Amino acid sequence: MTAAPGTGGAVVGETSIKVRYAETDQMGVVYHSNYLIWFEIGRVELLRQIGFSYLELERSQYHLPVVEVRCRYKSSARYDEMVTIRTRVAGLRSSLVEFAYQAIRQSDGALLAEAETTHFVVGIDKKKIPLPPKYLEALRRAMGN
Amino acid sequence: MTAAPGTGGAVVGETSIKVRYAETDQMGVVYHSNYLIWFEIGRVELLRQIGFSYLELERSQYHLPVVEVRCRYKSSARYDEMVTIRTRVAGLRSSLVEFAYQAIRQSDGALLAEAETTHFVVGIDKKKIPLPPKYLEALRRAMGN
Amino acid sequence: MTAAPGTGGAVVGETSIKVRYAETDQMGVVYHSNYLIWFEIGRVELLRQIGFSYLELERSQYHLPVVEVRCRYKSSARYDEMVTIRTRVAGLRSSLVEFAYQAIRQSDGALLAEAETTHFVVGIDKKKIPLPPKYLEALRRAMGN
Amino acid sequence: MTAAPGTGGAVVGETSIKVRYAETDQMGVVYHSNYLIWFEIGRVELLRQIGFSYLELERSQYHLPVVEVRCRYKSSARYDEMVTIRTRVAGLRSSLVEFAYQAIRQSDGALLAEAETTHFVVGIDKKKIPLPPKYLEALRRAMGN
Repeated sequence: MTAAPGTGGAVVGETSIKVRYAETDQMGVVYHSNYLIWFEIGRVELLRQIGFSYLELERSQYHLPVVEVRCRYKSSARYDEMVTIRTRVAGLRSSLVEFAYQAIRQSDGALLAEAETTHFVVGIDKKKIPLPPKYLEALRRAMGN
Repeated sequence: MTAAPGTGGAVVGETSIKVRYAETDQMGVVYHSNYLIWFEIGRVELLRQIGFSYLELERSQYHLPVVEVRCRYKSSARYDEMVTIRTRVAGLRSSLVEFAYQAIRQSDGALLAEAETTHFVVGIDKKKIPLPPKYLEALRRAMGN
Repeated sequence: MTAAPGTGGAVVGETSIKVRYAETDQMGVVYHSNYLIWFEIGRVELLRQIGFSYLELERSQYHLPVVEVRCRYKSSARYDEMVTIRTRVAGLRSSLVEFAYQAIRQSDGALLAEAETTHFVVGIDKKKIPLPPKYLEALRRAMGN
Repeated sequence: MTAAPGTGGAVVGETSIKVRYAETDQMGVVYHSNYLIWFEIGRVELLRQIGFSYLELERSQYHLPVVEVRCRYKSSARYDEMVTIRTRVAGLRSSLVEFAYQAIRQSDGALLAEAETTHFVVGIDKKKIPLPPKYLEALRRAMGN
């Protein structure tokens, strides 16, 4: 958990993933949909680092469903490689949160993929609702402004 | 849906699977855990064929969690191959159901894997309860005795 | 396989998916990364419908790795629902192909998600190469211009 | 990596898993096929702990395909829980290795599942071959006899 250069002081969560055999495909590299699973791990880890857990959020009947994903694949990850997922809050409105991600191979620092996800804040009835102030404030601080 | 030779008149559900790219691994074959997902598809299809849906069962607050899996892998499935999952009821008590499966490659009839799963019947509190008579009766008929 | 209204006569591949239990998550809906797997099934099916198979392409040492994914989630798919994946060629250069997708719930026609993927054409050494003319031509015809 | 009580001095590899959101299903617990993926992680970790890597083994053209899985599910794992996978060598012949596993919830020590897998040793042509002596010896030492 560090301040990100060039991101205005945003908090950047970092978490490590080891590539699983089941995540590879017959091309010998990680199948592309698995990065979305990794980004979720990064997102949850960032939330934990700034003081709340996604589990706790769900128990309070708030959900953050993904409404948009954009991902650019730059290089291939392979079995047993260690990958760092760097995550930061990239956008914030009362009922909408954006996260930005980088997946980086640890052995050589290569950028594997970069991505953004957009999430609505919804209640138990799946309707948009504002995040409670304490969560909004924590996310705003994590954005660095 | 046919009567199975050598299985005492049991109903055998048949369903077709086309191997997905995401199901392969870097050995170029289907990763072994995916067969369990296919067997569940076969199980659900057999239930549907004998007159009730797993969805309906869950809505009535009955669940059939897997408590045991045994699977023997005989040959490898590859990307884009068509696979038949043959499923039958292999055992039945009031709160326990056993299913048996075969995964067969359609192009040459090769047996890819055979397996059995054991399921408890549980209610919403995760405690064992007897299946309602109509389900028990349908499963008993499907067993062929 | 139909011509798409409003897409200039493009061929639209259609393929049906039944939602698997393993594809759901604890929110009770399909986990978002699974759509990317479905879109690949749609893509492969479209290719087959216009006359060549991805398997054959890979055997000729051509690969079409995903270099970008964009997906907007509109509604949630649930267990056991039937989903139609509609796929068309949305862009084409000698070493780059774009596909566009819609995931539609069959019961009510609801749009679940729409997406685009961009693919490079690469050879066995992972370097960009032009697609052979017969593939390019088939894709161009499928684009409808 | 400890000696296992009651297992004759066998080496027991231990590795930690954090349950991913994508691994849950609509029952709110980990979908059962994911345990097989976890056991593979445990197996690879044990191999690493006794001095060789599965990656290195594959590069030497040896593979250890799973030919049998047996798994008993005892309790349910949930999202975000930490799980320890304990793995040991349970059987060994020149071209066959058996591993035994336990999945244990870290918060309360509950046994989630226990399992065994059987693997053939095969070469690049998928035919059974004996493991090289250095691997056999390492596995024999890990068995504790």
